[in-house]
Amino acid sequence: MQKNILIIPGDGIGQEVTTWGKQILETIARQYGHEFSFDEAIMGHTAIEATGNPLPDETLEKAKASDAILFGAIGHAKYDNDPSAKVRPEQGLLKIRKELGLYANLRPILLFDELLDASSLKPEVLRGTDILFFRELTGDVYFGEKKRNEDNTFASDLMNYHRYEVERITRKAYEAARNRSKKLCSVDKANVLETSRLWREVVQEIAKEYADVETEHMFIDNAAMQLVKNPKKFDVVLTANLFGDILTDEASQIAGSMGMLASASIGDGTGFFEPIHGSAHDIAGQNKANPLASILSAALMLEIAFGLQEEAKAVTKAVADTLKAGWRTGDIANATTSADRILGTNEMGAKVIE
Amino acid sequence: MQKNILIIPGDGIGQEVTTWGKQILETIARQYGHEFSFDEAIMGHTAIEATGNPLPDETLEKAKASDAILFGAIGHAKYDNDPSAKVRPEQGLLKIRKELGLYANLRPILLFDELLDASSLKPEVLRGTDILFFRELTGDVYFGEKKRNEDNTFASDLMNYHRYEVERITRKAYEAARNRSKKLCSVDKANVLETSRLWREVVQEIAKEYADVETEHMFIDNAAMQLVKNPKKFDVVLTANLFGDILTDEASQIAGSMGMLASASIGDGTGFFEPIHGSAHDIAGQNKANPLASILSAALMLEIAFGLQEEAKAVTKAVADTLKAGWRTGDIANATTSADRILGTNEMGAKVIE
Ligand SMILES: CC(C)[C@H](C(=O)O)[C@@H](O)C(=O)O
Ligand SMILES: CC(C)[C@H](C(=O)O)[C@@H](O)C(=O)O
Repeated sequence: MQKNILIIPGDGIGQEVTTWGKQILETIARQYGHEFSFDEAIMGHTAIEATGNPLPDETLEKAKASDAILFGAIGHAKYDNDPSAKVRPEQGLLKIRKELGLYANLRPILLFDELLDASSLKPEVLRGTDILFFRELTGDVYFGEKKRNEDNTFASDLMNYHRYEVERITRKAYEAARNRSKKLCSVDKANVLETSRLWREVVQEIAKEYADVETEHMFIDNAAMQLVKNPKKFDVVLTANLFGDILTDEASQIAGSMGMLASASIGDGTGFFEPIHGSAHDIAGQNKANPLASILSAALMLEIAFGLQEEAKAVTKAVADTLKAGWRTGDIANATTSADRILGTNEMGAKVIE
Repeated sequence: MQKNILIIPGDGIGQEVTTWGKQILETIARQYGHEFSFDEAIMGHTAIEATGNPLPDETLEKAKASDAILFGAIGHAKYDNDPSAKVRPEQGLLKIRKELGLYANLRPILLFDELLDASSLKPEVLRGTDILFFRELTGDVYFGEKKRNEDNTFASDLMNYHRYEVERITRKAYEAARNRSKKLCSVDKANVLETSRLWREVVQEIAKEYADVETEHMFIDNAAMQLVKNPKKFDVVLTANLFGDILTDEASQIAGSMGMLASASIGDGTGFFEPIHGSAHDIAGQNKANPLASILSAALMLEIAFGLQEEAKAVTKAVADTLKAGWRTGDIANATTSADRILGTNEMGAKVIE
């Protein structure tokens, strides 16, 4: 198989971790006889520094022309503490999602038995959890009109959904539910939001086409609570952009650490694969970041973008074996991990490649 | 002290639990020589059934005329599954919050040592946690303009904040932080939302007036994660209406159960005290609901509305003693709780009164 892969490291630890995602793809290509060619592009703070634009045209063109994209992370504290900044790294990520039509963000909460103890949740609460989030990614309050009064006395963001936006992600989620435990939970705030009421209506309609799948509707506040109380009760979770952002970060604690979670953004064209963690500037450049989320993002690329099931499984197994052998990065170590088993980004990446 | 208290049981288990909040207030009045007089009013589904209006004028008038309000819960599955219903129970609650100017919702996450084991989180993660949420309650996407296209192809809700709305709750939160550990964390999504950027600007400005308080800003996705990972790191948490709704429900798992958490809504006039749990129709009328959140709401009323510190402490101590003696309702029992220690609503209420 021949594929062109675009690497966008982005900001902060993005650089360090995508190096390992890429090396995994190279290793797989070598072992399974594929031809993966790689190009690189800039985005976010890095791109603002270089060009003034968080998503340069060149990056967007390369992205559209590639078969799949491996992305690192975005963001910088500089902008976070300056709410009045007009140009911001995150605009690059939001724009590329919109431009590539990446409306479905899949976030599997993959639980490795070896990490049961790394979580703040009790092992007996966690054991057996297997959740697949479908987060809508190109609508909601993220992309609605933003306003600010001239005298800074008022600000607004329009939360909004078109029926077709809800329909297409809902179908994707139901298709996935069919191939899993046939259970789907749609999360909204229909007791307060009109957007959520439209969301719920559409899901109720489409549910009829998937009568073999059991559908549940849950309010976001309740879902945020149930996810901590009893994560096992969830299988496929379908939700809007903002609620999905919050719930999936929360759910990362089920997997022990944000450093373990990969995501796939798919839609009309090229797929986009990225860890769910952020740029973590506090540990950037220190060889401390966990490369496993980027490596698992590469596995999702193999599976979802290229249909290479076997290759994807080989990567996931390599991660599992590395964990089984006792190797940890700092974020997934616990009090009983001996110091000589705690590795840096590069050493961990190399162990998985082995 | 002479006070007029309005009881609004609302829907579902609201009826059962407010009975005990009220009895606690009566007991305190007797013991400490106060004169509390009680009136009752309807709201929510109950009020729709009786009058067609989720907040009848009579209820609103009584509310305005009272010194404090003890509320139960709101909501009914009938409306949840019918997104097109025009009249909804929740409208009653939202309207009374707006009409009474209840802009600050205080939700203390009070952790009883006896319940450390009732949580899905590890005891060592929980121990020592003590959080006070300040959730803004009369603005945000809850009250912004709602739209729906005639052909049902589009829906929207306006998320918005006025500067003065952010200012007044921010000051309340800083005042509280001064009297606690002098740490305040403001939660927003300033990397995406204009509303959040205004929020952050205002908090940054007011922070200067409270230089003795350490201020942190956190994105909502990260906060939802940190709250599970390391709840101890939070003290006063300040946030907007929607984010506060989500975070405080999530945080209820720190306290072992939603059935333990009380809240105080305050603002321009009469204060409003209510459990954070919902109407739980699935267990309503079965003598299963945990009355402690209503009892602790009564304690908050004594403390915040009437300034009766000693009386409030007596109530909290009675709850702690009941838990210490091993009594539990179903929601806070765990695998090691012997069956004869698990009480119904009424038996639990009576134990606390004892
Ligand atoms: C960086 C930010 C804009 C982004 C989001 O909110 O979507 C991130 O949190 C994510 O989840 O991918
Ligand atoms: C019932 C609902 C409208 C309400 C809210 O979202 O504010 C509830 O969840 C709460 O937290 O008080």
